[in-house]
Amino acid sequence: MGLRIGMTLEKMIQDLVVKTKKASTSLMSLSTLSKNEVLETIAGLLETDKKLIQTENNRDIEAARAKGLSDAMLDRLTLSDSVIESMVSGVRELISLPDPVGKIEDFSKRPNGLQVGRMRIPLGVIAMIYESRPNVTVDAAALCIKTGNGVILRGGSEAIHSNLILAKILKKALTLCGVSSDVVQVIPVTDREAIPYLLRQEEYIDLVIPRGGEGLIRFVVEHSKIPVLKHYKGVCHIFVDTDADLAKALPIIINSKTHRTGVCNALEGILVHQDVAKSFLPKLVQALIKKNVVVKGCQQSCSLSQDVTPASEEDWGTEFLDLIVCLKVVAGFDEAKEYIYQYGSQHTESIITENYSTANRFITEIDASAVMINASTRFNDGGELGLGAEIGISTTKLHAYGPMGLEELTTRKFVVYGQGQIRS
Amino acid sequence: MGLRIGMTLEKMIQDLVVKTKKASTSLMSLSTLSKNEVLETIAGLLETDKKLIQTENNRDIEAARAKGLSDAMLDRLTLSDSVIESMVSGVRELISLPDPVGKIEDFSKRPNGLQVGRMRIPLGVIAMIYESRPNVTVDAAALCIKTGNGVILRGGSEAIHSNLILAKILKKALTLCGVSSDVVQVIPVTDREAIPYLLRQEEYIDLVIPRGGEGLIRFVVEHSKIPVLKHYKGVCHIFVDTDADLAKALPIIINSKTHRTGVCNALEGILVHQDVAKSFLPKLVQALIKKNVVVKGCQQSCSLSQDVTPASEEDWGTEFLDLIVCLKVVAGFDEAKEYIYQYGSQHTESIITENYSTANRFITEIDASAVMINASTRFNDGGELGLGAEIGISTTKLHAYGPMGLEELTTRKFVVYGQGQIRS
Repeated sequence: MGLRIGMTLEKMIQDLVVKTKKASTSLMSLSTLSKNEVLETIAGLLETDKKLIQTENNRDIEAARAKGLSDAMLDRLTLSDSVIESMVSGVRELISLPDPVGKIEDFSKRPNGLQVGRMRIPLGVIAMIYESRPNVTVDAAALCIKTGNGVILRGGSEAIHSNLILAKILKKALTLCGVSSDVVQVIPVTDREAIPYLLRQEEYIDLVIPRGGEGLIRFVVEHSKIPVLKHYKGVCHIFVDTDADLAKALPIIINSKTHRTGVCNALEGILVHQDVAKSFLPKLVQALIKKNVVVKGCQQSCSLSQDVTPASEEDWGTEFLDLIVCLKVVAGFDEAKEYIYQYGSQHTESIITENYSTANRFITEIDASAVMINASTRFNDGGELGLGAEIGISTTKLHAYGPMGLEELTTRKFVVYGQGQIRS
Repeated sequence: MGLRIGMTLEKMIQDLVVKTKKASTSLMSLSTLSKNEVLETIAGLLETDKKLIQTENNRDIEAARAKGLSDAMLDRLTLSDSVIESMVSGVRELISLPDPVGKIEDFSKRPNGLQVGRMRIPLGVIAMIYESRPNVTVDAAALCIKTGNGVILRGGSEAIHSNLILAKILKKALTLCGVSSDVVQVIPVTDREAIPYLLRQEEYIDLVIPRGGEGLIRFVVEHSKIPVLKHYKGVCHIFVDTDADLAKALPIIINSKTHRTGVCNALEGILVHQDVAKSFLPKLVQALIKKNVVVKGCQQSCSLSQDVTPASEEDWGTEFLDLIVCLKVVAGFDEAKEYIYQYGSQHTESIITENYSTANRFITEIDASAVMINASTRFNDGGELGLGAEIGISTTKLHAYGPMGLEELTTRKFVVYGQGQIRS
């Protein structure tokens, strides 16, 4: 019986995936105008069907409350008026962004007269696996529609009623615009085993994007035969160089640490050059403490400020996501670089310096998805870096490194215009 | 005892991988001149140490002969004078190619004054897993050195002595040029279990490229936690449209099928529009038969030419890699597109047509790493498409789709030049 149910679930996933892949081919050559029309229809329906969405959302909230979920969890689950408004404006913003699909790049003429270019095309079908926030359902679907990709959505079980009503609205909009509603799918069951079944469909799914805690992401990587774009965590550092303009250093560090603490581009570790430590470190610690930041430091930091508590070995490289920061005095650039290599997570690294050569070395030698000079780590964000919209941040290097925008949801095929050429 | 050996092997692989990753950071900022110097030194040593290489290669050949390997296998294993010469010229050609690393693209200024660009950087460490040809050892190492990547090479067990002597030469060249010899590694054991151990090192290896038969590639995908760039097979088609210039069609088809049969961009299936089938198909079959090609066809093809043998269901979509081809009469563009969707392998698809709109539809709607108009499928090749050098052809869409050149061995990080900006 268990096996029979298992097989039924596997078959259901398989059918859904095959259907999505097939339907996604119709999106490949859909015009930008048509795709924007679908997006505008989605935005309109989200507004007119708001009450309907909130009724279904309430079912999830009540169930979550009965299960005793935390207030923070309930908050993330709730589709309030303002959350729905921001979903709508998110979809409308996408309309105004350029469509990467169809653009031909690197066009050249070969010696034999062949004209060769590389055309941007959709990836095909993207599977999104995410946790509680049901607004991701609309965000992800809209990004995929704009870039001509089919999308299979697998949200958290606690948001299932919200996700299903949102899926209904998305499909209604597609149908109203004459596009196959199969291009957007929400997996209608909450069984955990659905995920491994999904992750084996490499023939029909081109990319998996997990969004959520490290546990979810590791689970996806472990089980997936499909390429995964992911980041595990953001352990970001700022290195205050000996040639730093300390008047810039202080606000940048405070902003990086305290602007928002629970995000992946928040600052987790500060490295201070020993030549400026004596003058700068006590001021820095005071400023952090004034903002309620707990400062854990190396022995030297502790000796320079009594407000620093000794850091344990586990503190170095920890993603606190809280008002806590690690502080270390380093002998110079090389020690800072070595520290970042050992404890960083290839997310965001920033240097404060006025020295041209040191800045240049940092930009070249530090390996992270974003390397910065004299700027807050909080700028490693699709919107802030000019991508317009963001589907996540990748800290693996293949395909995308850093924030992923619309272009990262596409790939390029070679297009070859011949006049009868054969190979000799 | 088995377990102890297993653990020792795992530890050996782990140590080798950690060492390579660490050493690869020194390649990140190595100048193009220095990398070219390493390549020139490798080329020189391959020439001066030719006898030494051939002595070790003979050990492999003798062992292979004793094991009764086929002549074709022995041929692929042999490092003859001419194979070594072509290895040397391959390395020297790389010297003349532009170095993609360090190039900053998409530079822009944000409203707050931040200057944002995307700098091409090495991927980090690349693992190559391949079968018998030992020349891949030098080709792959040279491509990785040029692009600043560390490389871990795992060749076939039958080529182990050849690969080890080539590794020695590669390491000698690196040392002579003052670069850590740890950036190039040949796995010194032939145990098959070494591969799964290697494929779990996602923290230290950024990309795996398997080259060989479908079995090897499926094994790698099955076991890898690291992203894999691969292609399983090349089932390439040519569609002869009703508006085809038949004088172009014939030589293109013959070239695609017979120029080289054992390669992934060779033609495996021909689709002929029903409106030209009666006049064109018999001539086509004659021309193919004259070149010793066995033609397997649909019912209609068989009725138009008695030299066509009926194709079985398994023939459609088969990668013959031989003087065999499938032939099918189709009702029009839509049936051709549907056939390619069902039986193609997203490798290379070509149309023969003089019709502007049909050509345009084909380029836009057909999903393959290279789509062509009036050209031989044999042109889907890094050299022919202008990439200069090729490390393989990808038929998965993430990161690279089609031939992979130097640029595909790099990624881009965001570089942010600030003047003290903080996020508001």
